[in-house]
Amino acid sequence: MNISRLAFLLLFVCSIDGLAQSDSTMLRKIYDEALTNGHAYDNLRSLCKDVGHRLSGSEGAAKSVTWSENLMIQYGFDRVWTNEIEVPHWERGLPEKVLLMPDSIPLSALALGGSIASEGPISAPVVMFNTLQSLKDAAPGSLSGKIVFLNQPMNPKYVDTFNAYGGCAGGRSAGPSEAARKGAIGFVMRSLGLRADDFPHTGMMRYDTDTDSIPALALSTNAAYQLSQAVRKGPVNIRIETHCKTLPDAPSHNVIAEIRGSEFPDKVIVFGGHLDSWDVGEGAHDDGAGIVQALEVLRIFKTLGIKPKYTLRCVFFMNEENGTRGGKAYAKISEAEGTVHYAAMESDRGGFAPRGFTVDAEPLYVEHMAQWLELFKPYQIDFIEPGYGGVDINPLKKAGTPLIGFVPDSQRYFDVHHTANDVFENVNQRELELGAAAMTSLIYLIDRHGFPERMKN
Amino acid sequence: MNISRLAFLLLFVCSIDGLAQSDSTMLRKIYDEALTNGHAYDNLRSLCKDVGHRLSGSEGAAKSVTWSENLMIQYGFDRVWTNEIEVPHWERGLPEKVLLMPDSIPLSALALGGSIASEGPISAPVVMFNTLQSLKDAAPGSLSGKIVFLNQPMNPKYVDTFNAYGGCAGGRSAGPSEAARKGAIGFVMRSLGLRADDFPHTGMMRYDTDTDSIPALALSTNAAYQLSQAVRKGPVNIRIETHCKTLPDAPSHNVIAEIRGSEFPDKVIVFGGHLDSWDVGEGAHDDGAGIVQALEVLRIFKTLGIKPKYTLRCVFFMNEENGTRGGKAYAKISEAEGTVHYAAMESDRGGFAPRGFTVDAEPLYVEHMAQWLELFKPYQIDFIEPGYGGVDINPLKKAGTPLIGFVPDSQRYFDVHHTANDVFENVNQRELELGAAAMTSLIYLIDRHGFPERMKN
Repeated sequence: MNISRLAFLLLFVCSIDGLAQSDSTMLRKIYDEALTNGHAYDNLRSLCKDVGHRLSGSEGAAKSVTWSENLMIQYGFDRVWTNEIEVPHWERGLPEKVLLMPDSIPLSALALGGSIASEGPISAPVVMFNTLQSLKDAAPGSLSGKIVFLNQPMNPKYVDTFNAYGGCAGGRSAGPSEAARKGAIGFVMRSLGLRADDFPHTGMMRYDTDTDSIPALALSTNAAYQLSQAVRKGPVNIRIETHCKTLPDAPSHNVIAEIRGSEFPDKVIVFGGHLDSWDVGEGAHDDGAGIVQALEVLRIFKTLGIKPKYTLRCVFFMNEENGTRGGKAYAKISEAEGTVHYAAMESDRGGFAPRGFTVDAEPLYVEHMAQWLELFKPYQIDFIEPGYGGVDINPLKKAGTPLIGFVPDSQRYFDVHHTANDVFENVNQRELELGAAAMTSLIYLIDRHGFPERMKN
Repeated sequence: MNISRLAFLLLFVCSIDGLAQSDSTMLRKIYDEALTNGHAYDNLRSLCKDVGHRLSGSEGAAKSVTWSENLMIQYGFDRVWTNEIEVPHWERGLPEKVLLMPDSIPLSALALGGSIASEGPISAPVVMFNTLQSLKDAAPGSLSGKIVFLNQPMNPKYVDTFNAYGGCAGGRSAGPSEAARKGAIGFVMRSLGLRADDFPHTGMMRYDTDTDSIPALALSTNAAYQLSQAVRKGPVNIRIETHCKTLPDAPSHNVIAEIRGSEFPDKVIVFGGHLDSWDVGEGAHDDGAGIVQALEVLRIFKTLGIKPKYTLRCVFFMNEENGTRGGKAYAKISEAEGTVHYAAMESDRGGFAPRGFTVDAEPLYVEHMAQWLELFKPYQIDFIEPGYGGVDINPLKKAGTPLIGFVPDSQRYFDVHHTANDVFENVNQRELELGAAAMTSLIYLIDRHGFPERMKN
């Protein structure tokens, strides 16, 4: 194996000079098409303004499925179809309220995804914690009748803001049940954002089954600061109210389009983002950007008349936000049908200026793709390195598919993530288009040159 | 020389492992300080909101000089002083108007810097050109009594938007006189922005002395599109009105602070941005960001107790926008005083997410600094490569000083550049702080390790 790998690499090195010229010409064409005739921005505007937010199970989600299918059909790809799936169906209901007592000062808040209703207002003393661990360490029963306030800021020292998010997201998913276990009757947390603002975020939360479910909300970073200042001054009561409900699972769909490969039609290079969003804002960066970029990959191939060797498949996954049923179903159906995925790529980190790609695969794949970095230098793509692929494509990993995550600049992402601020106006057209071009270019290079390991097959 | 250079490089390579540990520790401290206790954002807020825009010669500019001096003095640096200079003094006067006739539809517009007043409204037929060259090629006298409309969009194919700007800026500076030379009585141009929006830009324009001066304005990109559509349908008149005037040169100042070097106090590492701005918006990205970042370099050294070997000097240059008198005066005064500048750095490309540094110097300097790139990897600084330094530090080049330009991401810059949209709210705190940290880090490495060529001295 090592010898054949070496032989391949030598062959590759010898041939790369000849290829480089046409590759660089083609990448230039791809970028020119994306930057001068791109459809991503107009498609995103339509998704945000004609459909709007689209939480799994909602009317918006159903509308987004139709919108996607119609759009894909208009482009005249070789095939457009859907995967039928069942998705969780949670509704926020009437707007939630958090009031700082006794003066009933409103604190901007959003119920966390999955929260129960409070069944009327709940007023109680606040106990503040700065980490999930300190909440876990609280004595049993010590929080009886209290509302827990988890006031953990994201760590600004991380340059990659996703690392800061990762350090706090556990508090959102596990915090409410930890609080309930100690006797708390409500849970509020500081939103997972790095900026001081008035946009509370939401996001997935899961109740453990061994304890009570209690209403759970996030405060905006400004409101959390206000509450923390009040708590530091002395005992504080807040009054919380939520009207959420969880309905039976609802039918929904992944939406899929493909261009058949000319040489290896049975091997699929898949790429996508997720169609669902949270139920505030417009899901512009998360993940409208990702799906319109993925669709651009197919459109640019078709418009430029590039015939792919492998089958190129674009998937709009449903339900990434609160169940990942779409990604799981896609992998399951693929397995049942015997579909071989040659590579998978996901865009789900916002429509910001491209920085690079992370690859979740054997080092050989990473090294192989990193050889193409020189071709990306004019386009300010600075790395192809080991890292995460994506939530929706992750279930394809066990079949050995190399997973690729598109990585845009992360600084502004948590200013909008899961908030009412995630709207079309906060997406920059060029940044979005450059991302589509970068994704198309890497898919092009994979399609044209393949991977050494697989070439032996 | 080659041998001594080689010897140095070998020495450098041998010692870099030992140094690398303490360097990476110090860079981490610098970034932590900038990201958790940074002053750049609050200083920028104060500059934008307490001072506002500050065109050379204006009250705002005078106020900004006082603001700067007071701020620098508060930090307790070793020395704070000013350079007295004379600056151009141009005033916009009452708001300009462009009306699409005969229905008097207002088109959003700004007079270009340096424009004369129209002395009442001028109504005339429009002749559209798509390039400066096609205007130059027009027959003599062919534009008599007409208003020229230079409708040249920035080329979206350039990934670095400054290249697209460079390709069009000649139309702004030279277009009006070219138009006048062919008989035109007014000049309007498409704003130099890549986005479709309603924010006209302004910027420096210069009349040639061999032809008439005519009123000159820029239309927002949306208004330019509207006018171009009207022109394509048939003959169109517009009515333009400007109220600008050029007053006698006014006194103003560069504002300067420094920390004296412990080993080479007579050699200065200088860094800065420009204090003046155009007379719309708040000059937040251009170049409030640059000056607060440069000041952070000094502050972080002081706060962390880092004693520089070389003298570190922060300069807020006056009059970059319409005369560059500050940069020229600084170089002249330095030459007269025999000041040796060991290195110079400028931040004048907006407060966006850092990408790298460009170096205008002998290749040896670039190669030397590029060896430090590995230290910047955790901070997403991706290149140190040959390129431009900066307008204000450029006059130091002839003395052999290596010039360094800080390069943030360029995609959003021309959305705000020279427009009413260049306000504090469009600056992201983390992006600004990361830039300050990157600048401080590179200054730190230069101060600590020096340059091989100079070390021989």
